[in-house]
Amino acid sequence: MIIGLAQHLKTDFGIDFKRQELLDEAFTHASYVNEHPKEHLKFYERIEFLGDAVMQLCVSEYLFKRFSTMPEGKLSRLRAAMVCEDSFSKFAKECHFDEYIRLGKGEEKADARKRPSLLCDIFEAFIGALYLDQGKDVVVDFISQVVFPKIDLGWFDHFFDHKTELQEFLQKDGECDIDYQLLAQEGPDNERLYRMAVYANGEKLGEGTGYSKKAGEQAAAAQALKKLVK
Amino acid sequence: MIIGLAQHLKTDFGIDFKRQELLDEAFTHASYVNEHPKEHLKFYERIEFLGDAVMQLCVSEYLFKRFSTMPEGKLSRLRAAMVCEDSFSKFAKECHFDEYIRLGKGEEKADARKRPSLLCDIFEAFIGALYLDQGKDVVVDFISQVVFPKIDLGWFDHFFDHKTELQEFLQKDGECDIDYQLLAQEGPDNERLYRMAVYANGEKLGEGTGYSKKAGEQAAAAQALKKLVK
Repeated sequence: MIIGLAQHLKTDFGIDFKRQELLDEAFTHASYVNEHPKEHLKFYERIEFLGDAVMQLCVSEYLFKRFSTMPEGKLSRLRAAMVCEDSFSKFAKECHFDEYIRLGKGEEKADARKRPSLLCDIFEAFIGALYLDQGKDVVVDFISQVVFPKIDLGWFDHFFDHKTELQEFLQKDGECDIDYQLLAQEGPDNERLYRMAVYANGEKLGEGTGYSKKAGEQAAAAQALKKLVK
Repeated sequence: MIIGLAQHLKTDFGIDFKRQELLDEAFTHASYVNEHPKEHLKFYERIEFLGDAVMQLCVSEYLFKRFSTMPEGKLSRLRAAMVCEDSFSKFAKECHFDEYIRLGKGEEKADARKRPSLLCDIFEAFIGALYLDQGKDVVVDFISQVVFPKIDLGWFDHFFDHKTELQEFLQKDGECDIDYQLLAQEGPDNERLYRMAVYANGEKLGEGTGYSKKAGEQAAAAQALKKLVK
């Protein structure tokens, strides 16, 4: 049994896991199973197969409902930015899931615990276990804490180019002078927030905040588009 | 409004669709929307984006639970065989969905109604609409009628090689003489069913039925494995 994980989930995410054996399966690597043949353990791959599909649906449904006029092509690109190894491995790290993985000695030595592909697998496996234990609504609660806020923090803005969209919209009937300006910054160096504004021919169209100037500009452009397009 | 579709769903599948506008969206191609600009219609692509993820999860969950010891690699291959254009276009045709698609004149002339990629899209879009209208349990009911029985009819046996698996199992401790024989065939030419048996060193291990001798052999091997492995 993996010690401390159930308590961690309860304390940090309010999740009261019922079936410890699902958690154990989700956090156990094949290399650990091979080193403990007498314990008849299961490793995470089957449950990860399920968790991957659970994440696809939960993210798709959220995007479909939140961005109710976004064309399918953009929805797909945004989903691909969210449901990928790079994102999932960061979520796993943020949730401290790396500390609970059961690895064989060789993999431990090879620093597998830090490997993005493994962290991504574990995140999906955890989602699969949570779905089996508590159902889809609890999964949605969890990713509403861990995944969806990242959209507004600008994590996926590279797939989600509001600035280009705003420029195309404003210049569709001719030239327009678009300008971004810094309104304020706050917070410590490593968590500094930038408040940006966007102006078209001198008129302020929107404001937005992000952990970089670029993310703040994207948020400002998004706000401007929301006003202009509706 | 698409005429007759809601009634067809009720008569053939017991589905009492509430929101006709979702059905209309799911069965309307962009070419039709372009030809009717004043009606402000929606075409199916957004709802198909959602339906695709719904199918992924429903099929994954079914396979995960039904094949409770199947390794992840096999689960993934079987899911890929089920969740693909070839399968979905056949399901759409079987459900007569092709008859209800709203197409522009050019696409109609180009025989788009018969195009597998379009039929696949419409099947996914229908699943998305059904999920929004009635929730996941009703989707599972529907695909339990239309999709899951195809596993036992041998549709996906090419991804699912019981014969090889049986051979490996029987010959793991040495040679074994494996033989398949036709027990019976019935039905008209275009729907003939073959009942096959598998023998190991002369002892009958299993029987199975399929729409080809090969499918029948696979089913017989599957039954033998079920007996031997459990």
